[in-house]
Amino acid sequence: MRDVYLHALFSPKAIAVVGSLDGAGAPARVILANLEGSGYQGRIVPVNWTGERPADALESLGDIDLAVVCLSPEAVLDALERIADKGIRTVIVTSAGFREIGGKGYYLEEAVIQLAERRNMTLLGPNCLGVASWADRMNASLISRLPAEGNIAFFSPSGSMCNAILDWAASEEIGFSKFASLGNRAVIDEASMLQFLAEDPQTHVVIGYLEGMNNGRRFARISQTITREKPVIMLQAGMTEHGRKAISSHVGALTGSERAYQTALKQAGIIQVDNLSTLFDLARMFGTQPLPKGASLAIVTNSGGAGILAADGMAGTSLNLARLGRETSERLGEILPSHMQASNPVDIGMQALPEQYARAVEQVARDRQVHMVLVVIAPGLGVDMTAIAKALADLPKTLDASMAVCLLGQEGVLEEKRFLQRSGLPCYSNPKAALTSLEAMIRYAQWKTTAYPVEVCYRRDKAKAERFLEEYLEIGKTELFGFEVQPLLQAYELQFPRTELARTSRSAAKIAKRLACPVALKIASPHIEYKSDVGGVELGLQTPEEVRQAFLILTSRVQCLRSEAFISGCLVQEMILGKFTEVCIRARRDPKFGPLVRFGLSGSQAEIFQDYSLRLAPLSLEDAAGMMRELKVFSLLKRERGRDALDLRALEDVLLTVSQMTLDFPEIYALEFDPVLVTARGAWIAGARMSLLPHAEERGRDR
Amino acid sequence: MRDVYLHALFSPKAIAVVGSLDGAGAPARVILANLEGSGYQGRIVPVNWTGERPADALESLGDIDLAVVCLSPEAVLDALERIADKGIRTVIVTSAGFREIGGKGYYLEEAVIQLAERRNMTLLGPNCLGVASWADRMNASLISRLPAEGNIAFFSPSGSMCNAILDWAASEEIGFSKFASLGNRAVIDEASMLQFLAEDPQTHVVIGYLEGMNNGRRFARISQTITREKPVIMLQAGMTEHGRKAISSHVGALTGSERAYQTALKQAGIIQVDNLSTLFDLARMFGTQPLPKGASLAIVTNSGGAGILAADGMAGTSLNLARLGRETSERLGEILPSHMQASNPVDIGMQALPEQYARAVEQVARDRQVHMVLVVIAPGLGVDMTAIAKALADLPKTLDASMAVCLLGQEGVLEEKRFLQRSGLPCYSNPKAALTSLEAMIRYAQWKTTAYPVEVCYRRDKAKAERFLEEYLEIGKTELFGFEVQPLLQAYELQFPRTELARTSRSAAKIAKRLACPVALKIASPHIEYKSDVGGVELGLQTPEEVRQAFLILTSRVQCLRSEAFISGCLVQEMILGKFTEVCIRARRDPKFGPLVRFGLSGSQAEIFQDYSLRLAPLSLEDAAGMMRELKVFSLLKRERGRDALDLRALEDVLLTVSQMTLDFPEIYALEFDPVLVTARGAWIAGARMSLLPHAEERGRDR
Repeated sequence: MRDVYLHALFSPKAIAVVGSLDGAGAPARVILANLEGSGYQGRIVPVNWTGERPADALESLGDIDLAVVCLSPEAVLDALERIADKGIRTVIVTSAGFREIGGKGYYLEEAVIQLAERRNMTLLGPNCLGVASWADRMNASLISRLPAEGNIAFFSPSGSMCNAILDWAASEEIGFSKFASLGNRAVIDEASMLQFLAEDPQTHVVIGYLEGMNNGRRFARISQTITREKPVIMLQAGMTEHGRKAISSHVGALTGSERAYQTALKQAGIIQVDNLSTLFDLARMFGTQPLPKGASLAIVTNSGGAGILAADGMAGTSLNLARLGRETSERLGEILPSHMQASNPVDIGMQALPEQYARAVEQVARDRQVHMVLVVIAPGLGVDMTAIAKALADLPKTLDASMAVCLLGQEGVLEEKRFLQRSGLPCYSNPKAALTSLEAMIRYAQWKTTAYPVEVCYRRDKAKAERFLEEYLEIGKTELFGFEVQPLLQAYELQFPRTELARTSRSAAKIAKRLACPVALKIASPHIEYKSDVGGVELGLQTPEEVRQAFLILTSRVQCLRSEAFISGCLVQEMILGKFTEVCIRARRDPKFGPLVRFGLSGSQAEIFQDYSLRLAPLSLEDAAGMMRELKVFSLLKRERGRDALDLRALEDVLLTVSQMTLDFPEIYALEFDPVLVTARGAWIAGARMSLLPHAEERGRDR
Repeated sequence: MRDVYLHALFSPKAIAVVGSLDGAGAPARVILANLEGSGYQGRIVPVNWTGERPADALESLGDIDLAVVCLSPEAVLDALERIADKGIRTVIVTSAGFREIGGKGYYLEEAVIQLAERRNMTLLGPNCLGVASWADRMNASLISRLPAEGNIAFFSPSGSMCNAILDWAASEEIGFSKFASLGNRAVIDEASMLQFLAEDPQTHVVIGYLEGMNNGRRFARISQTITREKPVIMLQAGMTEHGRKAISSHVGALTGSERAYQTALKQAGIIQVDNLSTLFDLARMFGTQPLPKGASLAIVTNSGGAGILAADGMAGTSLNLARLGRETSERLGEILPSHMQASNPVDIGMQALPEQYARAVEQVARDRQVHMVLVVIAPGLGVDMTAIAKALADLPKTLDASMAVCLLGQEGVLEEKRFLQRSGLPCYSNPKAALTSLEAMIRYAQWKTTAYPVEVCYRRDKAKAERFLEEYLEIGKTELFGFEVQPLLQAYELQFPRTELARTSRSAAKIAKRLACPVALKIASPHIEYKSDVGGVELGLQTPEEVRQAFLILTSRVQCLRSEAFISGCLVQEMILGKFTEVCIRARRDPKFGPLVRFGLSGSQAEIFQDYSLRLAPLSLEDAAGMMRELKVFSLLKRERGRDALDLRALEDVLLTVSQMTLDFPEIYALEFDPVLVTARGAWIAGARMSLLPHAEERGRDR
């Protein structure tokens, strides 16, 4: 993206507003009024594009660096040509009637995109509401009521979401630095906007609304560095089954799976929220408070009940109730009524004076063992909210702890809420919202400390693997099962129980001798998915003779139960001795984001509880370790210590190898290692499946 | 509870207000002012309890049926005696300084309770804010600003929660019928209040705040019938680990476990919420809308983005997006802009006129396949919220669907929200809150249709069971393991794999012969909890000779690994043949609620995912079936069909028997059947433990 032109979008020296100036509600007039009302210091040039020879109006334009076009869609192309002729490279097109209405609008937008490319123009919209920059005192948008100045930047493709969010921010005194309504994102998209805002000194927090994003991969890549400097909070729409249905009847649609998309954004450190209230709650907190230095929270309240509810709200978060230091307890003892205990939550009673609230909060916030303070105030007889808000706002700004205030009540405390917010204290209507926001701060603080991902180098015999895949693809076989995958595993130095196919009982006995008993015998048939359901598995066979007999029993038993199934014989498989845990590793190629790796325990419970972790390849070492830690069943993996501990390093290696393998070969569409037996020494791929992409010519290498 | 006196609490003919009338802020004066301000039609008698002979003031009292006492705690007892002398049986004591301050206050409250009992008085408080009844136009409380009249009754022990909730309701136009501040609950408690409100014709919905309730069992029992008539929504505080810590530093504390308590309330059909916002959200919905006839939702919006977010919010609920009927789609086609599709969510665009909103909503609500309609409106240029709200309020009241409106935005739409709420349309700031409330309505509608529990009669040899328990208790053995529990299982006709203890390898072989092979052999030692971890289990032994050899191997192997363990021999156990699933059934006696039965799969994953269901005994048939259905892993229990299907009936029987057994014998403190093997024919108790209560004299039979 041409940064210099994006600069002109927010900080132009002179703006032309091109459109009909007839009628009070004409968009061009609204923008002119907003520009003037915002105190913009540059030159404003109205261009009344109307009458018989509208383009003449443009002729007189002097040195202009931003044009705002509010014309009928049919007039836009002509106007853009003429604007380009005048050397203007940055344009906002507010006009609707493009891609969003389909048909003719779609082709009109394609023409706009080509024109912008040909004339080297940067274009916001079409079908957008414009931009505003508080530092430049410029409101070049169709929205008249904007919030106060602050440090939060905001963008959204949806105009109605711009309206909703700015309206909310204005009424709650949340301060903004810049906003951009992206509209149809014909040229300027979320990724280029985010990149620009990352460099903006007035912006400390970036928030946005994402819907049907086309360029998720680029957005994620750009975010990865930005999120380590500034929090990026995104409201994601259409990430659920119902939401997806809704989005398909609306503008644009997601290419690639929701899961891959969310994983990409998560790996990039973006804070994802799924509803408006949470977006607001987090923005309030991140915009005003320092990141907490730990997870210990103190609650100060005038209502025992509210204190309990606030403590209840901590369930499921990583926050814990701080143990107050002795000094703090003593000082609180001087403030509290005699029968109240100085324990956390600190209940200072309904009769406390405003100064007492402030003193109690200050004492607690100065305690080294307290990283966050939540003040919860309930209304009541003699409780002077205004005075309390004032006392809290006057607290020294040098306190280390992250602070949040919760005033229970609605309209009655609206003024106090605004006042506190203006004073830099985030203010909530219920404790749960404050706690969710504090939790997000803790997680973000952790993210900031994680190292940049380091790529892992792997030994592998790539040529061998390539030959192997080509062999199958040439004969058009795209679904590989079990022992067919062995050569690939060998090429990547993965361990597996050696397995051979025996077509007769005699050969089974021979193979058993070669592999060394004990061995397992498993029915081999393309038509039988769950072998043990038909009695098709025998484990721990001790001698070649046992193997021979078992072969006969297994094949006749299965043929009897499943007369329609073709049975090619039995697999003779080396037994993995000692204790092990069975895990399942899968990878699937997302059309947009590439291979998505999934890890969880083997078995149906992992599915039922949705207990698995996801990462997009390439995995870093940190990712592989993180994938294990993230599982709720992680405790099962690491419960043993010492000699019996599972070899999680070996498991890490398998995860990293799967990542590398799928990146090396775009031919691999999907892959499943299930079960992988993790023992005290090594991890063994005991089951494998693989789907290959049949049409080699359509492939493009990922890297 | 003496209902007639509770009647006088809300509908007295004449009220005496007893307290000092000096100073503008004196509580008695506040109450007098509130009584007069509320338009109370009965007689109000101020009793100025001050000066040298305060009690004289009471002498002149005539025919009074409610006294409000606002005195110093020390003066309360004297005043109550004199009030009783005058024949007044219903009293509110607002004074603080009782149980809540501990020490002296505690004894003072005990004296008040005794006095109330002795003089047959009904008493609200002490340490409370009073009551109000809208139908009686009576505000006998310390709260001056009350909400409008409506159909919601509310009670709370916490005064600050009364303040917070009434303040909120007033500002959002939620209408109330009655409210009571229970204070210390010395005499009138939550249960008696609920019972009274159940009969109150003006009350359609009961909401409350519960904290450290002492009488949960009675409350639950009373609720069971009430909740089938009126929804009862309770905000529960102190139900989490942190909340419990907080409550212990506050007034009162829960006796019995949180889990038993919540289970009791759930079995009684009470709708439990854990934060203030949800309480408000649900009250709004239940107070105004008919229960939905199904789970299909239509969304009507002017913002595509808001529609997607609303659809996203349905994830995790039982709601589904309604498929609009053809007629509805056609009619919507006439209303929508030409490029918009008439699919659900219905996006009518930002330019729609107020009448178009209303027409679209009406069309959708008339669709038979639509049970609920959520209207989501975003602000924007030309969107006239006031006119839209008016158009929605004018919709016919005869529509069957449950309706909810969501106006995105805060202060700017406050008036419209209030207006809609007054018009009987529940109004929310974000779609998620509306959806949570609709989901609660659906669940409540289901609850209303469930049958009253029917008790199950069980055959059992109670005398045999009693002898068995007494035998162990007499010798002071309170922890029973495995096969020691067999006689009890027999007495209750439960199936179990026959098991005998063999002290020598020869006797093991003999037992195996008797039980019939194949058998299992398990090490028997009180010191070894996980037998298979030390190689102490051999399964599927085919001959007595194999058993004999295995005995020698097992005992020497385990003795070698665990030299400190006492080994009494090996258990020889009948093998359960065929496929089975392992489940775990536990029961534990809650000191307050009696036996709490827990059901889940066997193994550590059930613990990790907290996937188990709970019920208090006695279980009904419906409960036993419900306990299975509630599990997330229920699909695992019922996945097989036909001949291979697990015998869930047999499992139901085990659950019901556990319930009966623990009710029959309060001596059983805890009981665990793990694993219970559920096969295609029958369920077998393959592992059992039991803890008995040693002190027989302290026991009281549950029933």
